[in-house]
Order: sequence, then structure tokens, then C-alpha cells
Amino acid sequence: MNQEDYLLKFEVPEIIHGMGALSKIGLCAKRLGAERVLLVTDPGIIDAGWVDESIKYFEKEDLKYVIYDNVVTNPRDFQVEEGTQLYLQKQCDVIVAVGGGSPIDTAKGIATLVSNHGNISDYVGCNLITQPIPPLVCVPTTAGTGADVSQFAVITDTRKKVKMTILSRAIMPDISLIDPRLLQTKSEELIASTGMDTLTHAIEAYVSSLSWSLTDPHAIHAIELVTEHLIPAAKTRDTKALEGMSIACLEAGMAFSNAILGAVHALAHPLGGLYDLHHGLINSLLLPVVVFQNMEHAQHKFAKIARALGVETRSMTIQEAASYVPEKIKELIEELGLPTRLSQLGVNREDIPLMAQMAQEDLCMLTNPYCYSVEEIEKLYKEAW
Amino acid sequence: MNQEDYLLKFEVPEIIHGMGALSKIGLCAKRLGAERVLLVTDPGIIDAGWVDESIKYFEKEDLKYVIYDNVVTNPRDFQVEEGTQLYLQKQCDVIVAVGGGSPIDTAKGIATLVSNHGNISDYVGCNLITQPIPPLVCVPTTAGTGADVSQFAVITDTRKKVKMTILSRAIMPDISLIDPRLLQTKSEELIASTGMDTLTHAIEAYVSSLSWSLTDPHAIHAIELVTEHLIPAAKTRDTKALEGMSIACLEAGMAFSNAILGAVHALAHPLGGLYDLHHGLINSLLLPVVVFQNMEHAQHKFAKIARALGVETRSMTIQEAASYVPEKIKELIEELGLPTRLSQLGVNREDIPLMAQMAQEDLCMLTNPYCYSVEEIEKLYKEAW
Repeated sequence: MNQEDYLLKFEVPEIIHGMGALSKIGLCAKRLGAERVLLVTDPGIIDAGWVDESIKYFEKEDLKYVIYDNVVTNPRDFQVEEGTQLYLQKQCDVIVAVGGGSPIDTAKGIATLVSNHGNISDYVGCNLITQPIPPLVCVPTTAGTGADVSQFAVITDTRKKVKMTILSRAIMPDISLIDPRLLQTKSEELIASTGMDTLTHAIEAYVSSLSWSLTDPHAIHAIELVTEHLIPAAKTRDTKALEGMSIACLEAGMAFSNAILGAVHALAHPLGGLYDLHHGLINSLLLPVVVFQNMEHAQHKFAKIARALGVETRSMTIQEAASYVPEKIKELIEELGLPTRLSQLGVNREDIPLMAQMAQEDLCMLTNPYCYSVEEIEKLYKEAW
Repeated sequence: MNQEDYLLKFEVPEIIHGMGALSKIGLCAKRLGAERVLLVTDPGIIDAGWVDESIKYFEKEDLKYVIYDNVVTNPRDFQVEEGTQLYLQKQCDVIVAVGGGSPIDTAKGIATLVSNHGNISDYVGCNLITQPIPPLVCVPTTAGTGADVSQFAVITDTRKKVKMTILSRAIMPDISLIDPRLLQTKSEELIASTGMDTLTHAIEAYVSSLSWSLTDPHAIHAIELVTEHLIPAAKTRDTKALEGMSIACLEAGMAFSNAILGAVHALAHPLGGLYDLHHGLINSLLLPVVVFQNMEHAQHKFAKIARALGVETRSMTIQEAASYVPEKIKELIEELGLPTRLSQLGVNREDIPLMAQMAQEDLCMLTNPYCYSVEEIEKLYKEAW
């Protein structure tokens, strides 16, 4: 085996975390050389008042700004192109994203096209972006995506109805500014589903074939934080719980951006592309089904995950401890009141063979502890249906 | 209290780790825009063959290079100036440091002066470096310093005989390339003393008043790795143990660069400045003395440190568990055969009042769990004498 096969990597943006961190948004943009910022966001964030607050901080630093807010869940290729045109027309120099995964991924797409040109589909795959992007500051408003600290962007190809996964060192943001206050304006359902997305990131990163000493402690700590904080965060929007979830999301993001993901994401992407379903909701639904099948391929790791999920594993065998993981995840989903079957979400059973083909070829399948065949993936979808 | 007091930060370079990572040194420099590299190193590293190997990788990428190797333990202000002249004369564009803490800190000093001008003493303190430095790649050859992932540089003011601590976001390296093979050419004593430096970094970062969720898991994991790997690494230079220590050093560096340090470092700096003693050796000697006094100010944290040091704490009270820490550290020092008294190292008892004054004003004292008075610091030095 080549020596280089043993090289492992770890890269994260500069992270600033805490209540009130949004107040640094102008300073951060300025430090990166901004004179005219493109602010990428969505109408919900504007309604919640976070864009008005951000503008105040831009003005304080004498920065000009342009807002691009035509962003929806599962951001589209044409939105990336629209934002790129706006950036170029208005001669912006720094991009700031305020939002969940959708505005952040859109911002990454725009950043890619303004310096690399062409179509966003040209960059699907690993490290195909060759030119450095403009400076990018991300302010996440959900505790789920991790996009603010990751090298991933997922954009929907509207013609083919597929989600395109772009994985490139070049789209790592420069600064992630995390203000747990911003989570307060989200609904219970969104906190629940994005929180389950965080749990999926942490579990997939921990059992990934690229996990290592620098990603493992963050993955495990993220699982512990979800176990402690997700239910109170969703039910009561308690400040301490939201803060805990914001750190869980951050640590899960640091882990998965470097260790990459697994079969849950591989199976989730076709569903997102074909049905435009919320990513966190699909991950949550698929997680116990995939974990059940993954278990035998990474039993030691799943035993540790069981402990992080609050199972008292001390007197158990590895196998016994691991076997609690799917059950604990199901309990969490039930308590959060999230859907548990694909059929509830309007997914057609006839699409399963096509989706299985797409999932088998997804980038995220490469680091799953076991590489499933198309037939095995069909079976997984059917179990979740 | 101001909202901003709650903001916490985390920043690390891009990290590439593994056996054979040195082979990427040319590619990394090139990726950062290099045409002519200034390679900062020392004669020991040249003798060990690592500079010849590095040159091979520069040549493979068609890079020109200039070597600055007049670096000693506790690097001096005039060496930083000499290296700066060389960088400017030869019109270098990227700095690569291959070595322990001394070449890396010298490289950071050179990087500071080539873009910020003036004297290195102008930048003593927090974030006083205003201009970005040239791209900087670090390849550590000891598992102790953490300088390759930190925002610190410590340079000796030869006129005043004091160690100057420079702490600035601007001197964070761009890439840390960590190849555990490079540890194989170090002596048992150096592995032992640099390993104790790593343990000091991890413990001080963990109990620091700026520690938080992103630094804690790395600090604790570093302590666990030192507990498992330091003795075999020093005694047998076993590959797995050296690899474990290289990760311990890295994680301790990630923790202390962001959570900062404490009283051990505050007390060590005057000794380094006045007596030119090896930094790891002094930290090792001071660690159990300072920890004993720090204990009551961070008992919960020291109880967790005890567990990471291998103490079976399950049936103990917090206080009882914490009390094992100084003892475990002393056991480690004894087994490694390192000195335990300042008098053994030629330190004059009469210098204690002067050193106590300097230590009280050291930047590292600010984040110690308790702020010692000059009189209390004198007592600590006397206990260690």
C-alpha cells in the first residue's frame, strides 16, 4: 500500500461562538477585505429579524451590501447562477451567508462560480474546484447543517432532479460565526429534524473509514450533547439547550467535514433530489434502518456510540452494547414526533430501484463501514418505506 | 458583563498527519504560491537527514530554496533578524520550518518581521501583529512544542535576558505537516522532556479559564495519549508510541493555542530567559508543584485529569480523585529519569524574587485558574528549588 494512503487531514474554519456573536459579522467581513458584501439568506431569516440586525453591523463598519434571498430548502442550480450574476453585477468582494444549510450551500455555490466560472455541475465530485473562492463568512441559524464548518455543498440539479454533492477544500468557509440566539426563532419541528441531522453527521463521521484521532472526540461529544440537549431544545427552546445543540452541530460538522459521511447520506440524497423533502427529516428516518445494518461492520464503534447515547454499557459485551443504538435512535425520533416511514412522506415505492442505483454511486457511500450493493440498498429503502 | 465576554474562539491550521507526510512538503509550499522557499531549521535536523529529504521534494516541484539553520534552543532575537534579512535578500515567498519549537518559533518571528517590519520586541503581547505574514508551513520534529498549530511564538530578548511571548492570530501557520517518522531521530531525553511539555500544555489548557467545548476533548485526549505512549516512546522509540505522542502533541497544541496556558508556563519563561534551560525540562519540573497549588481552584477538572492519567476514580470523591494528579505526574517524571529540582539545573536561589516578578506579569498567568501574587510565586519557585 502506498505511504500516502495513511495520510489523514483535518481542516476547520476560524470559529467564533457565543451569545451575541452575530455582532461581529461586520468586523469579520471587514477583516477579510470587504467593501461590498453579498449577503445570502432566505425570506424566513429576514422575517425573523436577523438580516436587519446584520445590516446594522455592516453599516457600523461602513460596508456596502447587497442581499440575495431567493433561496429555498434544497437549493437549486439556477439560484446559484442568479446569486453569481448579482455578485458580479454589483462588484461584491466578500460573501456572507446567514441561514441554515440552504443559504450556506447556495453561498458556497456562488463563491465557486464567481471565481471558477462554468456551471455548478462542473464541480460535482472531489476537489475539482481549482481557483480560490472569495472570502466567505457563515452564520448558521439552525443546529443541524454543519455547512458553516464543512467542505461540502449540496445543490439540486433541477433538470435531472438529482442532488449534486460537491466536496472541495476550496469551499471551506473562512469564518464561522455561531450565535445560539439565532436558533430561538425556529419551530419545534425544525429544531427536531435539524438536530437529528446533527446526530446523523456525528454517527456517520464516527464510524467512517476516514475517522481518526482528531475527528473522533468531536463526533462522540456531539452525540453526548444531542442526547442531553435535543429534546429540551425542541420542546422548550431553553437557552442552555439551544447552546448545547449549537455546539453539537458544530462538533459534528468538524467531524464529518474531515471524516466524511456514510450510507444514510448516500440514501438521503436521491430522496432529496426527487421529492424535495427536508434533508434532516429524511436522515432521521433512515438513520435507525441503516445503523441496524451497519452495526456488524463497526461493532466496537457502535458500542461507544451506545454509551454516548446514554446506555449504561459497563456490564455489557461489545455486541450487546452496539445493539442498543437503533433502539435509542428510534426512541428519540418518537419523542420528537418525527415521521418514521417514507410512505408517510409521499415517496413512491416504484422509485426505489432508481434511487438505489443513485445511492450506490453517491460519494458518501465510499466511507461507509460497508459498501452496499444496489440490491441491498433497495432492501434498506423498502425497510424504511 | 459585556455580551462579547462570552465569545469563544477556535482556530487551527490545515493539518496533514501520517507516516510519510513529509513527502507533501513541496506540494504544500507550492499550493501556497511558493517559487522560492525559506527553509528554517537547525543543524541537528540537517544531520538527521530530514533537510536533504525535504530538498528532494522541493526540487520535485521545481521550487527554489534557501536554508536558514542558525537556530538554537530558546531562539534569539538576532536570529530572527538574520533570517529576516536572508528572506528579503533572496526574495523568498513562502516560509517552511522543519524542526522543534525553536525553528518553528524562529520562522514565525521571521514571518512577522518581513511583513510588519521593526523589531520582534514590538510584537510582544496579544494580537499586535497587524499585517498578514507570508504563507507558513510547519513540519514538527518533536512531539512537544505544538508551535506548528499555535498562535504563540516565544523569542529570547538577548539584551534583557527575557523570553518574549508573542500571541497573535496572524502567526498561526497555514499548514502543519506531521510525520511521526521524524521523531525517530531524537534522543530518549528529548522525547521525555518534550513529551512532558505536551502534558503541561494539555493540563494547562484544560484548566484554563478560556477552555471550552472545542478545546476540552483535545486536551483530555492528549493526556490519555501521553499516559499510554510517553514511556514506550522514550524508552523504545516504538513506531506506534511515537505516532501516539505525535497526536498527543498536536491535540495539546490545538487546545492550548485556543484556551491559552497557565502558571507553569508563566513560571517557566523567566527560567528559560535567564538560564537558557530546555523549555520542556523546566515545565516538567514545575508541573507537579504548580498543579498541587492549582488543584483547589479547579477540582472538578483535576478529577477528570486524574482519570485521563489512568487513576481508577469511579469510587472516589472529586477531591480525592483530583489529589492523585501531582502524584501521577511525579511518577511519570521519575520513570522518565528527568530532573526534579531547580537546584540540579544550576538555578540560583537569589534570582527567585526577580523571576517571581516576571512570572506574575507573564501573559500565561492571565488564564490560570487562580492568579498568584508575587509572594505566592516565590513560594512555588522555592518548593521547586
